Amino acid sequence: MADADALRAKMKASGDHVRTLKSQGAPKEQVEAEVAKLQEAKKELAEATGEPLGEEKGKKGRMALKTAKGTRDWAPSDMALREHIFSTLTRVFKKHGGSTIDTPVFELKEILAGKYGEDSKLIYDLQDQGGELCSLRYDLTVPFARFLAMNPIHYANIKRYHIAKVYRRDQPVMTKGRMREFYQCDFDIAGHYDPMVPDAEILCIVCEALGELEIGEFTVKINHRKILDGIFAVCGVPTEKTRTISSAVDKLDKLPWAEVRKEMTEEKGLDHEVADRIGKYVMLKGGPELLDRLKKTELANNAMAKQGMDDMELLFTYLDIYGISDKMSFDLSLARGLDYYTGIIYEAVTHASAPPGFTTVPSVPSTEAQPSDHHSGPSAPSSKSKKPKKDAEGEEEVDEATVGVGSIAAGGRYDELVGMFMSAAAGAGGSSKKAAGIPCVGISVGVERVFSLLNQKAKADEESRWGRSKETDVFIVAVAEGLLAERMKLAKELWDAGIKAEFMHKAKPKFRAQFETIEKERVPFAVLLGPDEVKQGVVKIKAQKGKEEGKEDEGEIVERVCLVSWLKERL
Amino acid sequence: MADADALRAKMKASGDHVRTLKSQGAPKEQVEAEVAKLQEAKKELAEATGEPLGEEKGKKGRMALKTAKGTRDWAPSDMALREHIFSTLTRVFKKHGGSTIDTPVFELKEILAGKYGEDSKLIYDLQDQGGELCSLRYDLTVPFARFLAMNPIHYANIKRYHIAKVYRRDQPVMTKGRMREFYQCDFDIAGHYDPMVPDAEILCIVCEALGELEIGEFTVKINHRKILDGIFAVCGVPTEKTRTISSAVDKLDKLPWAEVRKEMTEEKGLDHEVADRIGKYVMLKGGPELLDRLKKTELANNAMAKQGMDDMELLFTYLDIYGISDKMSFDLSLARGLDYYTGIIYEAVTHASAPPGFTTVPSVPSTEAQPSDHHSGPSAPSSKSKKPKKDAEGEEEVDEATVGVGSIAAGGRYDELVGMFMSAAAGAGGSSKKAAGIPCVGISVGVERVFSLLNQKAKADEESRWGRSKETDVFIVAVAEGLLAERMKLAKELWDAGIKAEFMHKAKPKFRAQFETIEKERVPFAVLLGPDEVKQGVVKIKAQKGKEEGKEDEGEIVERVCLVSWLKERL
Repeated sequence: MADADALRAKMKASGDHVRTLKSQGAPKEQVEAEVAKLQEAKKELAEATGEPLGEEKGKKGRMALKTAKGTRDWAPSDMALREHIFSTLTRVFKKHGGSTIDTPVFELKEILAGKYGEDSKLIYDLQDQGGELCSLRYDLTVPFARFLAMNPIHYANIKRYHIAKVYRRDQPVMTKGRMREFYQCDFDIAGHYDPMVPDAEILCIVCEALGELEIGEFTVKINHRKILDGIFAVCGVPTEKTRTISSAVDKLDKLPWAEVRKEMTEEKGLDHEVADRIGKYVMLKGGPELLDRLKKTELANNAMAKQGMDDMELLFTYLDIYGISDKMSFDLSLARGLDYYTGIIYEAVTHASAPPGFTTVPSVPSTEAQPSDHHSGPSAPSSKSKKPKKDAEGEEEVDEATVGVGSIAAGGRYDELVGMFMSAAAGAGGSSKKAAGIPCVGISVGVERVFSLLNQKAKADEESRWGRSKETDVFIVAVAEGLLAERMKLAKELWDAGIKAEFMHKAKPKFRAQFETIEKERVPFAVLLGPDEVKQGVVKIKAQKGKEEGKEDEGEIVERVCLVSWLKERL
Repeated sequence: MADADALRAKMKASGDHVRTLKSQGAPKEQVEAEVAKLQEAKKELAEATGEPLGEEKGKKGRMALKTAKGTRDWAPSDMALREHIFSTLTRVFKKHGGSTIDTPVFELKEILAGKYGEDSKLIYDLQDQGGELCSLRYDLTVPFARFLAMNPIHYANIKRYHIAKVYRRDQPVMTKGRMREFYQCDFDIAGHYDPMVPDAEILCIVCEALGELEIGEFTVKINHRKILDGIFAVCGVPTEKTRTISSAVDKLDKLPWAEVRKEMTEEKGLDHEVADRIGKYVMLKGGPELLDRLKKTELANNAMAKQGMDDMELLFTYLDIYGISDKMSFDLSLARGLDYYTGIIYEAVTHASAPPGFTTVPSVPSTEAQPSDHHSGPSAPSSKSKKPKKDAEGEEEVDEATVGVGSIAAGGRYDELVGMFMSAAAGAGGSSKKAAGIPCVGISVGVERVFSLLNQKAKADEESRWGRSKETDVFIVAVAEGLLAERMKLAKELWDAGIKAEFMHKAKPKFRAQFETIEKERVPFAVLLGPDEVKQGVVKIKAQKGKEEGKEDEGEIVERVCLVSWLKERL
């Protein structure tokens, strides 16, 4: 990846060259070729710095014509694919009885406080303009838990999905879909149910969703917090170090064991022998047979681990019924960042989403953590092995080459988060009976990464259905004399019949200009109107499809009164 | 409307009473009845203060379990209707060749600066946490203009729609759909076209959209900025007072002429005779025939007014072709708030949306301005005739009784906004040739108000299709013995076939509990599984529909292998 300063220099040189050519009156093609190079340089710079295209800021007396750092616009050509992803996920969620809720983009600051550990520094706060202190939501899980705590009777049982934007003041890597504003697509099941039944359905939903999105082969890594905690206990990790050692283990998908061990012992002061005992466990992975192996170890005597293993055994039974056990990898190195998980945890990775360049213990592709996993927070900045540079704002730059598209779905069981809100609201010294809360399990699909993956594919395919930026089916063309009133009349007839139709908003449009739109947007039908057609009460229709097949299309004459039904038959 | 303090007192009394009853061990029914009263009192208070339900804040050691002021959650039962509104609008927008874009929720502060006049004080700023200064978007129009200015070549011509949330630190009136976070649904046509052709299509879209939303009878008030400016010129308004006098005129839908006249003369120092001359014009309204009348006045000699009248004449020709002239009211009192309008302006009002209690000049129902009209900003706090009270945060309270649902769509032509951005980015002292910009015309549908109106209707109708919070078509019921694995297997078969199916996540669910869900959510089909059914490879199906009609439903036996096709035929 070229350095941003080098790219800036390249861009400046390119810009200077364009100006010189123009002032010398160089041939148009030469100037255009140079302008194209300049655009390319601008784009490279934008990708390298995570700043969107547009005018550069900071020039004297000029307004910065750009979006805020780490955010971007989505053009119509992006939106078609994005909406396809959202509607595919919505369809899967609804198939499983999901209903949706909407919560505000900002929450009271204290609602988010203390939920994200050290990642709380990434929360965007609203300015204090009088009144309450608020922050932009960091994920959709905490607002959901807050919603449940406020309405525990109405929503004691709910399957809810929520597709919406969340905000993190992280270092952006725009080309890999890591942004400061990005979408999350969450599905969670809340309610007191029998063990592993909702958990298995969530995993079933993950598999169905990733399958329907056609992102290619994927694996779902699963583990159980209670097994992990049991491992730490039997290996001799002091209780107060459990969570911090757990975070170290979670890095095994990005760092070799030697480095993780070093973090445990040197940074976190763990005994060397304890670290080695942990190492023997967390490098294990496999299927249900791994449970049998674990049961023969000292883990079998740890009550916590025993509970976790019973859960996993039951889970595998259910996953077999759903026919998805082969997608799973029981992976003892999966720990996940956030504290609030209490049961099974999981993370889906595609082969296409692995970041390059890490020597990892697991054979399953390794991952990078942020956007997909709202359930864990962005725990793993990938540049940790290098000394980070500072950018113009004094913020750390990320070396893009080390960032993969990352895990594409992640989540787990969190049985205590709702209860935490209920207890906090009931008062710290509070009532004698602690709020019972509502157990939850959920998944978050990392749609920005899914988009990156599918968009790459779509770009390679010229015939892709995502090439169109709108759905217009009919374009009404004036053959001569403008005929604006006639075109308007015809358009209104088609609109009233529910047909997607357009015409050029000119009194006397050029014939060629009208067909340019039709070709660019691949509008299926051109309806041609000339004075003769108007007089005879007919239209001439040219289908774009026949044309693409190289057929000579002379056009078909259709009676005006039959036009709507003619079109409806073919659309 | 009861006073908030009185409501708080009422609530406290009710709460005390509940505690007393409980401590006295009063009968359960009595306590429950009192709790219901308490809930009712809380709700009234929430509606009166615009603060959402939930725990009251400020109690020592307790967390405020609520959403931020002026924001709210939308429950699944709301979302079905909200999504219906969004999808109806999207369908209409796509029919007219619309494509959508997505822009960030926050923009650089300077992008929004100077676009909203005195309403800029309502903009939410993000806290300065290092880096760029940003603000939450106030509408979707300014971000759209910024997008066009950044991509003038790619999007020189675009019909774009955008359905998204915007933010205003205004005084909320939650029950009337006036909130600090609310949706806007915008459709705009950008491009150099022939006069009034895009403008007429926008009005056509408004009529189609409001028609398809089934909000009842409506009228679209239209006027032209150039006619208004011509009127001010011929009446003798000094040029520098044009915009402020225009704002005064815009209040004629809420205030009687005498008050508007007073504002013009006493507050704004306009000559009494000039005000009276204006009065004669701005009280006029009608159809195209009003143009003939105006042409006989001194307006005919004003070049500006002449241009506006030519536009209106052409517009009416096109509206006739679209068959929507009868929905229009050419209303010379319509002025709209924002400065950036340069051509026709419009505002749709329903008979259902009029606020009570104003003596107005026009016969068309009067309106209240905020959420629907992103094109004008929240120009008209309705409590202006009363001395506002202060609430707990020292902010003004709004007297709800004076606030109507308001105008439900509004917009106009703004030909210079995009050029403003392009010029500002090119530099103030800038290049010799001024950026040409891209002319635009657009409409914003006030969906929160549409929701309020339709929700009222839906609540009155028990059979309403919006009564369901999810779309589950099949609920799999265990008749006896739990049969969890069998239910899971069957569910997976249905999911794989694309059928929306659920079962209870219990190993041995109670028969009654399963049917409660079916009845509450009006699930069309219950598929019953008992040991006999499993053995014989059949299921028993009970249709909820027959039951509603009072038919005795013994259930139909269907072969397991035929179940999917049986269901698909009926769904």
